[in-house]
Amino acid sequence: MNVVEISGGVGGARMAAGLARLSVIDLTIVVNVGDDEEIHGLHVSPDIDTVIYTLAGVQGPQGWGRVDDTFTVNTELARFGADNTFLLGDLDLGLNLFRTDRLTNGAPLSTVTGQIAKALDVGTTVLPASDDRLRTELMKADGEWIGFQEYFVLRQHRDVVADIRFAGGTSATPAPGVIESINRADLVVIGPSNPPLSIWPILAVGEVREALVSHPRVIAVSPLFGGKALKGPADRVMASLGLPPGNVGVVQAYEEIINTVVIDSDDRADVDNIDNVDVMVTDTRISKPEQAERLGREMLGL
Amino acid sequence: MNVVEISGGVGGARMAAGLARLSVIDLTIVVNVGDDEEIHGLHVSPDIDTVIYTLAGVQGPQGWGRVDDTFTVNTELARFGADNTFLLGDLDLGLNLFRTDRLTNGAPLSTVTGQIAKALDVGTTVLPASDDRLRTELMKADGEWIGFQEYFVLRQHRDVVADIRFAGGTSATPAPGVIESINRADLVVIGPSNPPLSIWPILAVGEVREALVSHPRVIAVSPLFGGKALKGPADRVMASLGLPPGNVGVVQAYEEIINTVVIDSDDRADVDNIDNVDVMVTDTRISKPEQAERLGREMLGL
Repeated sequence: MNVVEISGGVGGARMAAGLARLSVIDLTIVVNVGDDEEIHGLHVSPDIDTVIYTLAGVQGPQGWGRVDDTFTVNTELARFGADNTFLLGDLDLGLNLFRTDRLTNGAPLSTVTGQIAKALDVGTTVLPASDDRLRTELMKADGEWIGFQEYFVLRQHRDVVADIRFAGGTSATPAPGVIESINRADLVVIGPSNPPLSIWPILAVGEVREALVSHPRVIAVSPLFGGKALKGPADRVMASLGLPPGNVGVVQAYEEIINTVVIDSDDRADVDNIDNVDVMVTDTRISKPEQAERLGREMLGL
Repeated sequence: MNVVEISGGVGGARMAAGLARLSVIDLTIVVNVGDDEEIHGLHVSPDIDTVIYTLAGVQGPQGWGRVDDTFTVNTELARFGADNTFLLGDLDLGLNLFRTDRLTNGAPLSTVTGQIAKALDVGTTVLPASDDRLRTELMKADGEWIGFQEYFVLRQHRDVVADIRFAGGTSATPAPGVIESINRADLVVIGPSNPPLSIWPILAVGEVREALVSHPRVIAVSPLFGGKALKGPADRVMASLGLPPGNVGVVQAYEEIINTVVIDSDDRADVDNIDNVDVMVTDTRISKPEQAERLGREMLGL
């Protein structure tokens, strides 16, 4: 049974780790690259790394970065006046240095991602949505456009997001294997990531969107609990972008794409307001891999 | 009193630290950039950093790198298959990451070098010989040309050096301040560095060579003790490049440039074979800053 997960960072990564425990499926994770950024001249791919680290079981306590990492380099950078707000641990930096050097020497992001996953003993196929440059940009209330990491890390997602765009999205092509794995998949799972911030940049790649629209079985796991994200600005961003509140908004965010939405038992009341897709109501808290595995089994009908 | 030191790595850095203790002089160090290299995509400037670290008193026990450094990133790089033979400590890496990012954003090496020196509380002016790309390359006995770091670090200077060249030297111009500081100097000291490997790349910058040829008072500190370098391949490289053995070879390496050579008491016998420049015989062991200070006082007649 072939399964593809469309994933952002922490939530999607936890879902991936659960699905990876199901030995009966052949799993591919297609990951958002809209958060990618140049930090100190290094190409960071936060969502890809969060997915790989989580699959390898070496993710940091907050869900991102590496467990037991040190921050020697990051601290030293401040000595020279560099802005080190974006925390890069030393182990994490080793990976980012390796990736950047390979990219500079012409390797596609998907190739480097495969090398990194292999080096960390991750058996699951992890693919960037695209090897091309694609950047999520957000418009503040004052009309100024800022990059994702500036919004998310430097400004700690405090701004109202008045609009969103995906620079490079129009011309970006899917990374090798992305379309093939979606077309081959018996089921596509959209992980419990922030729909506009983490999944829309993947849908911004036209061929990926088309493949998902054409796919007969796409199921989205809502990131909401009682109408709000556990962490992060999902509900606020959805609201300011004009989506309805709660899981009605999640369904609308994935219009034309999904056949089923999985919502948490806390949001059971949303069922009555959703009529265009199937709704599965269950416990969607998946901070532990065994919880994510159980959710995976339910979705797959195992 | 204005003094310029022309410097390679460890030996020149120790001389610099001694001269810097003489509060009566205004000191500028002009440093070799022929050893500069791209390591994991980072621009490393080993001689500049050795000079700055030594002036700051934070150099590693071998003379290069930072004291009490850790190697977390370097070790992690090997996980991904990167060649980590060139040891970059974490603190050292922070500096190199900062420098590379600034250079990529268009800052000249001299500007970044000044920032780094300032951040490490180094009051002495440290200048790269040139902001332009200049690379020392060595021909092995089999006729193959290799880069400096491949020769020195990866192959641990075991090869016979049949020839030497300085890629970019012909077109390289001096970094801002280099010529001015030489012209203003009451005394120019060539540090006890490897003449062909560490000083010739500086002389390869035509305007620097001309300024030194024109200068009335250039004194070279020999790196030899009993005809050999304390560390490194100076005597072997000088021999294979056709220079006479001992300090006669050092004097010949600096032909037209120097008026005086300072040799170690162990090499007193060389005095009889040197007739075209003045010879100062003294204790040239300067592993401790106070020894280097004493040598500086002697050279300056203080």
